[in-house]
Amino acid sequence: MSAEIICVGTELLLGEILNSNVQFLAQELAQLGIPHYYQTVVGDNLQRIHQVMETALQRASILIFTGGLGPTTDDLTTEAIAAFFKTPLQERPEIIADITEKFSKIGRIMAANNRKQALLPQGADILANPTGTAPGLIWQPQPGITLLTFPGVPSEMKRMWQETAIPYLKSQGWGQTSIYSQVLRFRGIGESTLAEKVAPFFELENPTVAPYAGLGEVRLRISSRASSEVEALAEIAPIAAQIQAIAGWDYFGKDDDTLGSVVGEKLRQKGQTVSVAESCTGGGLGAMLTEVAGSSDYFWGGVIAYDNRVKVSFLGVNPQDLAQYGAVSSLVAEQMALGVKTRLGTDWGISITGIAGPGGGSEQKPVGLVYIGLATPDGTVISQEHRFGAIRGREAVRYLGACTALDQLRRQLMQGD
Amino acid sequence: MSAEIICVGTELLLGEILNSNVQFLAQELAQLGIPHYYQTVVGDNLQRIHQVMETALQRASILIFTGGLGPTTDDLTTEAIAAFFKTPLQERPEIIADITEKFSKIGRIMAANNRKQALLPQGADILANPTGTAPGLIWQPQPGITLLTFPGVPSEMKRMWQETAIPYLKSQGWGQTSIYSQVLRFRGIGESTLAEKVAPFFELENPTVAPYAGLGEVRLRISSRASSEVEALAEIAPIAAQIQAIAGWDYFGKDDDTLGSVVGEKLRQKGQTVSVAESCTGGGLGAMLTEVAGSSDYFWGGVIAYDNRVKVSFLGVNPQDLAQYGAVSSLVAEQMALGVKTRLGTDWGISITGIAGPGGGSEQKPVGLVYIGLATPDGTVISQEHRFGAIRGREAVRYLGACTALDQLRRQLMQGD
Repeated sequence: MSAEIICVGTELLLGEILNSNVQFLAQELAQLGIPHYYQTVVGDNLQRIHQVMETALQRASILIFTGGLGPTTDDLTTEAIAAFFKTPLQERPEIIADITEKFSKIGRIMAANNRKQALLPQGADILANPTGTAPGLIWQPQPGITLLTFPGVPSEMKRMWQETAIPYLKSQGWGQTSIYSQVLRFRGIGESTLAEKVAPFFELENPTVAPYAGLGEVRLRISSRASSEVEALAEIAPIAAQIQAIAGWDYFGKDDDTLGSVVGEKLRQKGQTVSVAESCTGGGLGAMLTEVAGSSDYFWGGVIAYDNRVKVSFLGVNPQDLAQYGAVSSLVAEQMALGVKTRLGTDWGISITGIAGPGGGSEQKPVGLVYIGLATPDGTVISQEHRFGAIRGREAVRYLGACTALDQLRRQLMQGD
Repeated sequence: MSAEIICVGTELLLGEILNSNVQFLAQELAQLGIPHYYQTVVGDNLQRIHQVMETALQRASILIFTGGLGPTTDDLTTEAIAAFFKTPLQERPEIIADITEKFSKIGRIMAANNRKQALLPQGADILANPTGTAPGLIWQPQPGITLLTFPGVPSEMKRMWQETAIPYLKSQGWGQTSIYSQVLRFRGIGESTLAEKVAPFFELENPTVAPYAGLGEVRLRISSRASSEVEALAEIAPIAAQIQAIAGWDYFGKDDDTLGSVVGEKLRQKGQTVSVAESCTGGGLGAMLTEVAGSSDYFWGGVIAYDNRVKVSFLGVNPQDLAQYGAVSSLVAEQMALGVKTRLGTDWGISITGIAGPGGGSEQKPVGLVYIGLATPDGTVISQEHRFGAIRGREAVRYLGACTALDQLRRQLMQGD
């Protein structure tokens, strides 16, 4: 017994819209514990919709349609479904009444082509649409086959799903167990290296563990099928703890945690403050720290020292060192970090100076070279050199630079624990 | 002859990620004039991938896969394809060499499981991945059947598509007439107002004109089907010129132009410089300006004055005014702008101070209230009040604040022209 999602709409085939409906429905099916192995997109074409239905019914017993319920002639979903099961369409007076009332509320008269939306196959139930004119249907045309249709407008579809489809599916016995997931997030370790370290966990069947990678970050998803979130978390927690122990400090947070929120939480716990001195990131590090609501508790601000004159006048970087070692050097990174810490009076100062590219690189100092400086509460200053390479482009160098600076601070904050 | 897109990944079935790859590929196929009637998503499961291939090959001659090329055991796409056509996998030394080199550039050693990414079916060509470790393939396992595979990481997939897949598909006779588009970008006007002003253009058949809206921006796409880009642009140019004339200063740029790049170009033309003083955006305005390569020609830097002490000590904001009017006020915005301009010695100074939320709002100063200050080359200082509302959330207030500040500067720079 599984479900299949069928999205109908030529606009999806032309790439005119991003299919966010399918992501929503996929999450909802996972929550209800309804297995779901395929998603299909098909255009506004009766024959092709039939072909997709034929394939889907060979392997699934619940078909969930989105799109194609509108008033125009290219909206074919209901018609295609009725024809597939050789069932006549019937005009439903209660739908006509509902549409008429909705139009009159906004001072308009129902257009003739809206009558089409009142046609449903004989025997099908109305899946009411509280916010739009296009209702859906819930129908068991044959024993063991259930069809649900939704309009393509995401807000209408979501409300109909929540108010009508979920109660219906639960009444059919679904949703007694659901899949709950926790995502563990790692930094400073590659996907393949982490995968090797935690390989045995990938063999587990419940909970399951699977890796995926993002820019500058690796994630592991631990998923458990259980009858409640509490029960699922009880199954997930020991696995998560073991993986965290293996990963050590490369593990930085879970679910919605970000480097900015994790660093912020640590600073808040310690009652410490931080400021930033940014060259190549131009403000991106400060922006990342202040994504977190309430960051003013520990983030005081900083200096965007893009031009060398600002490095000298606002941060006290030594002009001779700038001339001798260049702005992209460990010495200048250290002076920037100490300068911003001292002049703003914060506990920590972080700095970034580097070559974001695409121009400005040399053999000795290639695009992607970034120095990160860190001035600590006891007054010592350390710096690290990173080479992110030119290949991923300017924005990646800047993003990785800011993430790495936050990660450096995170590791320093861990040392005190 | 049509193409079909097959996206492989259990994370898509769980709704963990939004499938933006399929939208990109759909647009690209439309551009090349390659018909495409179905899209399928399937999990990391060999049998089910085979089932999808079987269905797809009954109706399409080009199969385009995304996902499942990674180094871990649940990455199955290549293996599934080889098994489907009963062809052995072969280790490709050139891929091993490429992966080894990529790892060594970032000072790491190739993990053992990356060897898996060097396996391709006998006879398949490598579809090089310039930015990642997972190459794809181009393969004609049988006459009349072409397969292309791409990794799931969008940036890698797009680059591979553009650099290798398009030239290949064109060499096979596709894309002789293509759809070329130009996007016109507007700020300071709503979608419906702009749509009313340019309504007659929506009736055109070639080129076509269609609107779409983004956060803080409205766009019009002008598309023309033609046999060359030159021919298409000749059709598009007069339409674009008429629309620009209607929109006036609300039109700010086209295609890849951003507010940051447009403002930067104006500053460069005038030989002027700018600095920023940021409170609620925390560095986001500087980050936006420095997204543009070469921005050091006109952007000197600035001060992230998140804490009021930094507003006073680094920007010279009057502490009494801070106490009397609050940090979020037109007077403080003006003092911040003038302070950063004067202390950095730039021609222009821009400032932002506001309440990003979700906390910190009051009846008089609600979440979403933002003041933007602008100190001009002749020493005058102006400020504007904006109310972005709380409903779209913290990140939207910050983003709209930074965009609006840049747009203010853009309009000031236009006045001199």
